[in-house]
Amino acid sequence: MAKEKRTAIEPTRQQDYPEWYQQVIKAADLAENSPVRGCMVIKPWGYSLWEHIQGSLDKMFKDTGHVNAYFPLFIPVSYLEKEAEHVEGFAKECAVVTHSRLELNEEGKLVPASPLDEPLIVRPTSETIIGEMYSRWVQSYRDLPILVNQWANVVRWEMRTRLFLRTAEFLWQEGHTAHATREEAEEETQKMLRVYEDFATNYMAMPVICGRKTEGEKFPGAVDTYCIEAMMQDRKALQAGTSHFLGQNFAKASNIKYLSEAGKEEYAWTTSWGVSTRLIGGMIMTHSDDNGLVLPPKLAPLHVVILPVLHKDAEKESIMQYCENLKKEISALNFANREIRVQIDTRDLRGGEKTWSWIKKGVPVRVEVGPRDIANDSVFVARRDTDEKKGVPRTEFIATLPSLLQEIQDNLLARALAYRQANTTEISSKEDFYAYFTPQNAKKPEIHGGFAIANYDGSEEVEDTLRKDLKVTVRCIPLEGGEPTGKCIFTGKDAKYRAVFAKSY
Amino acid sequence: MAKEKRTAIEPTRQQDYPEWYQQVIKAADLAENSPVRGCMVIKPWGYSLWEHIQGSLDKMFKDTGHVNAYFPLFIPVSYLEKEAEHVEGFAKECAVVTHSRLELNEEGKLVPASPLDEPLIVRPTSETIIGEMYSRWVQSYRDLPILVNQWANVVRWEMRTRLFLRTAEFLWQEGHTAHATREEAEEETQKMLRVYEDFATNYMAMPVICGRKTEGEKFPGAVDTYCIEAMMQDRKALQAGTSHFLGQNFAKASNIKYLSEAGKEEYAWTTSWGVSTRLIGGMIMTHSDDNGLVLPPKLAPLHVVILPVLHKDAEKESIMQYCENLKKEISALNFANREIRVQIDTRDLRGGEKTWSWIKKGVPVRVEVGPRDIANDSVFVARRDTDEKKGVPRTEFIATLPSLLQEIQDNLLARALAYRQANTTEISSKEDFYAYFTPQNAKKPEIHGGFAIANYDGSEEVEDTLRKDLKVTVRCIPLEGGEPTGKCIFTGKDAKYRAVFAKSY
Repeated sequence: MAKEKRTAIEPTRQQDYPEWYQQVIKAADLAENSPVRGCMVIKPWGYSLWEHIQGSLDKMFKDTGHVNAYFPLFIPVSYLEKEAEHVEGFAKECAVVTHSRLELNEEGKLVPASPLDEPLIVRPTSETIIGEMYSRWVQSYRDLPILVNQWANVVRWEMRTRLFLRTAEFLWQEGHTAHATREEAEEETQKMLRVYEDFATNYMAMPVICGRKTEGEKFPGAVDTYCIEAMMQDRKALQAGTSHFLGQNFAKASNIKYLSEAGKEEYAWTTSWGVSTRLIGGMIMTHSDDNGLVLPPKLAPLHVVILPVLHKDAEKESIMQYCENLKKEISALNFANREIRVQIDTRDLRGGEKTWSWIKKGVPVRVEVGPRDIANDSVFVARRDTDEKKGVPRTEFIATLPSLLQEIQDNLLARALAYRQANTTEISSKEDFYAYFTPQNAKKPEIHGGFAIANYDGSEEVEDTLRKDLKVTVRCIPLEGGEPTGKCIFTGKDAKYRAVFAKSY
Repeated sequence: MAKEKRTAIEPTRQQDYPEWYQQVIKAADLAENSPVRGCMVIKPWGYSLWEHIQGSLDKMFKDTGHVNAYFPLFIPVSYLEKEAEHVEGFAKECAVVTHSRLELNEEGKLVPASPLDEPLIVRPTSETIIGEMYSRWVQSYRDLPILVNQWANVVRWEMRTRLFLRTAEFLWQEGHTAHATREEAEEETQKMLRVYEDFATNYMAMPVICGRKTEGEKFPGAVDTYCIEAMMQDRKALQAGTSHFLGQNFAKASNIKYLSEAGKEEYAWTTSWGVSTRLIGGMIMTHSDDNGLVLPPKLAPLHVVILPVLHKDAEKESIMQYCENLKKEISALNFANREIRVQIDTRDLRGGEKTWSWIKKGVPVRVEVGPRDIANDSVFVARRDTDEKKGVPRTEFIATLPSLLQEIQDNLLARALAYRQANTTEISSKEDFYAYFTPQNAKKPEIHGGFAIANYDGSEEVEDTLRKDLKVTVRCIPLEGGEPTGKCIFTGKDAKYRAVFAKSY
């Protein structure tokens, strides 16, 4: 048996996927758990990813007519109560503020003091408080639509947390819009779903399926929840973003009424839509390999790292000068309408250690510059995605760098799409379905079948059974999925949907 | 007596300054109070100001070697206790989270459930939680310096709140750095103070005095607090930003230790520095007038608004076409290295109403385009800062727009500086000092003397007396203030400082 190649991340994806995920994050120094239960610290490299996600999405929101605003962190408990399904969905796990002061007790211990008249919760999402404000802002049809987004932190007291994927506090954006007509609100819901699809596909290089959630999986209080679902490398699904058509539910709960052009008092129609730091988890699990993080160039904090190869002191000055010039040339280039981000690593570390640190951080392109390279006016270029390495004349490298970055971006998307396609199967019998989702190898319980596409009758009973038997859920009813044909593979009744089923995060 | 000119904001600054401030915010639609006690809603126009402040400052932080990260919203009460002065400063007004769930009680009311083992407070500032993380990150001198900034929301349970100036929740940035030596940490403290000075002066057009706080006024737990102090139009001082040298206080409290190059275990030296949405309040009170908001072009959400003058339907198309072309020409221009931000106001409103809405929102330049203007290929230009209005050939307007914006920026700074100078007085006797700070006119108690510069002995007794007698405090001991000469004007003892005294926000 061939000796297994040593990898920078241990365990590998095959050996232990959840642990591999944690180790990739650690090796890239993206984030870590804090001493505050369930709350993570997003470290500079991870936060820079979030800044690039934020910057790109924010521009897309503004280009589609939205503006940003900021609403309170706290929500009075009575607001949550206004929407019955909503309170059901969020009251079970939330941070409750009950006092406004600490004081020393007799034992010299700090204890809560000055109880509030009404407890507040830390926002798990802001429909109710924003709805209250909209009810003050909207009087006539002329005040509509309201197209507002908020970048904020939210808190959901999750019992089991995982960095980026599920944390008690997380960062996100939440769009909240109000419209005069149902049609307009439905159109907005779809529009923002497609913005998310565009962002996931063309920035994160993460292919997604756009679809609608079933009754059991939709947002508490929504009429319809739409989502983008991506496949991770353990073949599980990740819900990466949602766009909710809220109908008049929250308008009625918050009393958002307007006088129509015809002079009639009407309730507004609202939507909400959000993505969060969970996207970072999705990006990690879509592209990274057994040597660590792999980043799509459009969101990489750094596109190129220059590594001077310094052996003799005598060569140092000329090599550093060459690197500085190279850096200047690279900075003058554009990729995806932004300056290419480049850095010289001058740290006093062994060459191998230096190189591996950048591999683990996922920088798309590494450039080594040693004395022989300078002599030839060439550079030694390594691609993170394919691990390809070769010497290239400097002028050629500069001339082709933007297209190389685009090639890497495209390759990541193509690779992820091929992976998803290879692990998506149409299934036409219950037996095959159960076999597909039953681990073949008890030693690798984390490897699952993938996405199954099947006809089903749309009943909650089927969903409940699958959840219990296989931990499989309906991820979505794809918008581009075609109509169901024939019978439900589970019950034999007429099929209502052709849905995507999978295990999920 | 001449009839007073009607103003867009009522009352005027002279009539009732605090109420004028509220009305300017309302007329510009910047923010409003929310139903959550002390928490404001920052509306799109106000939030856009914050985005421009954030964008500019963030670049300055990065240019000085800092990176962003994100730390938990919650702080365990035991962390707060680690630094004695710190707990004293913040325990008195903080939001305390005590439960992690809500449940229905017997009366069907939602009440807090699942009490936490240890209460958490919502961060009022993050020294203690960040210090805990740094203690894990720092082992050797090679791990230093840490130069991290965080953009976040914080909560201080203020009893009396005012939009932007003092709210229970506010947005800010907090830099937290750790260094191997005292010198380096002190240098960092000064460097960031100067970044704030640069930003206030050259972006906000708000002149500031850089100085050190007295013992009584410094940050709880700091060795030294430095600040920038600005004068508002009611001659009160606004502390607009602070930079703290924390010595080893927090390093000891959080156990941030490192192994020095010499192999000795040492405590790190830390700093912290912050500015907040309070800056928006400062900007409003520095520049705005009795017609509403006046904005420095470098931070204005919009530089130019184009107002088509439409009387006859027949002219509409040609005027709109002219405006569209004008907008394109303007967008192609740069001001302060950024695209000039321009918008056409196509709302169906009366001309006067439209114009006044932009005056109240503080847009630096308004351009009216009517049929006669088109005939002459000229535009009618109005400056918000001087209220100057004139017809200008289009080509000339385009050619001079960037310099016009710079002129407005410079004018606002010069005007604010002149105002501060006119209201700053050197005072050499206690009697004069008391007279200076005693309102001359009981009907205008909001108009105060301004800034007084005086020699004093540095004693807390003097500070306590002035606070009690006059509500006057030592704003700072200016870094460029010169040495004290002679005696303290209050006690006759040797003067220790030459300080700036004022009433303040």
